[in-house]
Amino acid sequence: MSPHSNPANALANIRIVLCQTSHPGNIGSTARAMKTMGLSRLVLVAPQHFPHPEADALASGATDVLANARVTATLDEALAGTVLAIGMTARRRDLSHPMLGLREAAQRLLDNVPAGQVALVFGTEMFGLSNDELDRCQLAAHIPTNPDYSSLNLAAAVQVAAYEIAMTASVWKVPEAPPRESASHDELERFYAHLEQSLIASRFLNPDMPKRLMTRLRRLFARASLEKEEVNILRGILTARDRWPPDC
Amino acid sequence: MSPHSNPANALANIRIVLCQTSHPGNIGSTARAMKTMGLSRLVLVAPQHFPHPEADALASGATDVLANARVTATLDEALAGTVLAIGMTARRRDLSHPMLGLREAAQRLLDNVPAGQVALVFGTEMFGLSNDELDRCQLAAHIPTNPDYSSLNLAAAVQVAAYEIAMTASVWKVPEAPPRESASHDELERFYAHLEQSLIASRFLNPDMPKRLMTRLRRLFARASLEKEEVNILRGILTARDRWPPDC
Repeated sequence: MSPHSNPANALANIRIVLCQTSHPGNIGSTARAMKTMGLSRLVLVAPQHFPHPEADALASGATDVLANARVTATLDEALAGTVLAIGMTARRRDLSHPMLGLREAAQRLLDNVPAGQVALVFGTEMFGLSNDELDRCQLAAHIPTNPDYSSLNLAAAVQVAAYEIAMTASVWKVPEAPPRESASHDELERFYAHLEQSLIASRFLNPDMPKRLMTRLRRLFARASLEKEEVNILRGILTARDRWPPDC
Repeated sequence: MSPHSNPANALANIRIVLCQTSHPGNIGSTARAMKTMGLSRLVLVAPQHFPHPEADALASGATDVLANARVTATLDEALAGTVLAIGMTARRRDLSHPMLGLREAAQRLLDNVPAGQVALVFGTEMFGLSNDELDRCQLAAHIPTNPDYSSLNLAAAVQVAAYEIAMTASVWKVPEAPPRESASHDELERFYAHLEQSLIASRFLNPDMPKRLMTRLRRLFARASLEKEEVNILRGILTARDRWPPDC
């Protein structure tokens, strides 16, 4: 079974693990960030304050993610049963795991979902993951950032990671535009003929020296890919203009 | 000149425009989000409170982005001189602009940078962009989200957009892994020979019925792509094991 066969199901098998988070507000913002992208499994390893009213406040409508969050004493408990754990790190380590970009990491997580649950692991706000915590992951991943200022807020990092996972799973769509009624070829040609006559009548276009005016206008309207209703509006404007001023 | 010929320069020509932001903290978090991805041009249209200590606090080390932010009374002023403005919207509108996904929008922005400055426009925390504001943009863009809960925090939306722009411009890199000294073919073959001898000596491998044990172990170590130092460690372990227990 490919994880792409049911992307929402794939998302349900991805754990977001936060290690020893200091600020409960960040836990709330993380829950909100997760839910916007369809992630729901939050695991908190030894959080300093949880539950906490500030977490609830910042979770906004994502209190269900907080309510279902699992709290564990150790990272090993948080990762029990996972078949792949990827640790997020902002810096290169000496004896490092292979370091993936976030986009590649998202793909690895989804590739492994058919085998079982997978985890993306985040460290503390101040220091990130310890080497010991990173040792418990199979891979390390990095959000490509400005090297002069790579300090993403914890919940912002989760938001970007959740976005990349959802994009890689192709799970959410851009809302469809309202249906368009495109003008047909013959409607367009009647409009161009009308426009040309109107430009001649107003003396803007000299039929003996047309240059490339109509070509330029066709080019403009072609880029706009006119709708039926728009052709009607434009022809209405031309008709009104043609009538005015009457033979002065 | 392609924008990709100098990606950092491309980023310098992208304006992030926030319309009538209510919470100064969101302006600070936006500055931080922008700077992590290398964006620096922040324009604030009629912010409710700015400058404000909360903006400074949440900007963390990105106070330079706040200090250089331009405050305008209207969106027209904020967009003056731009050659493309894309409005971010979470919902479909009735008489809508073509609606792009964020990834496509990032590409459009970068494609247009050689022609001049471009802008990505965000509405208020509560209501997003008004139809009148969206009318002043040439395109609308959407971050694909969970339709049941699409409420990204303003700064989180800016963070995701800034990330996508930086990824599309390929401007920041994943830190290089420390240099690896891979084991050579002959070092690996000597290791496999040593391993096989050791397994025979310990009676785990019966040379008359080897089955596919060595193939399985080769497969495992091939996936790990061993380094020289790791081969030395493994052979050291085998040697220590071979010596113990001494003829008991």
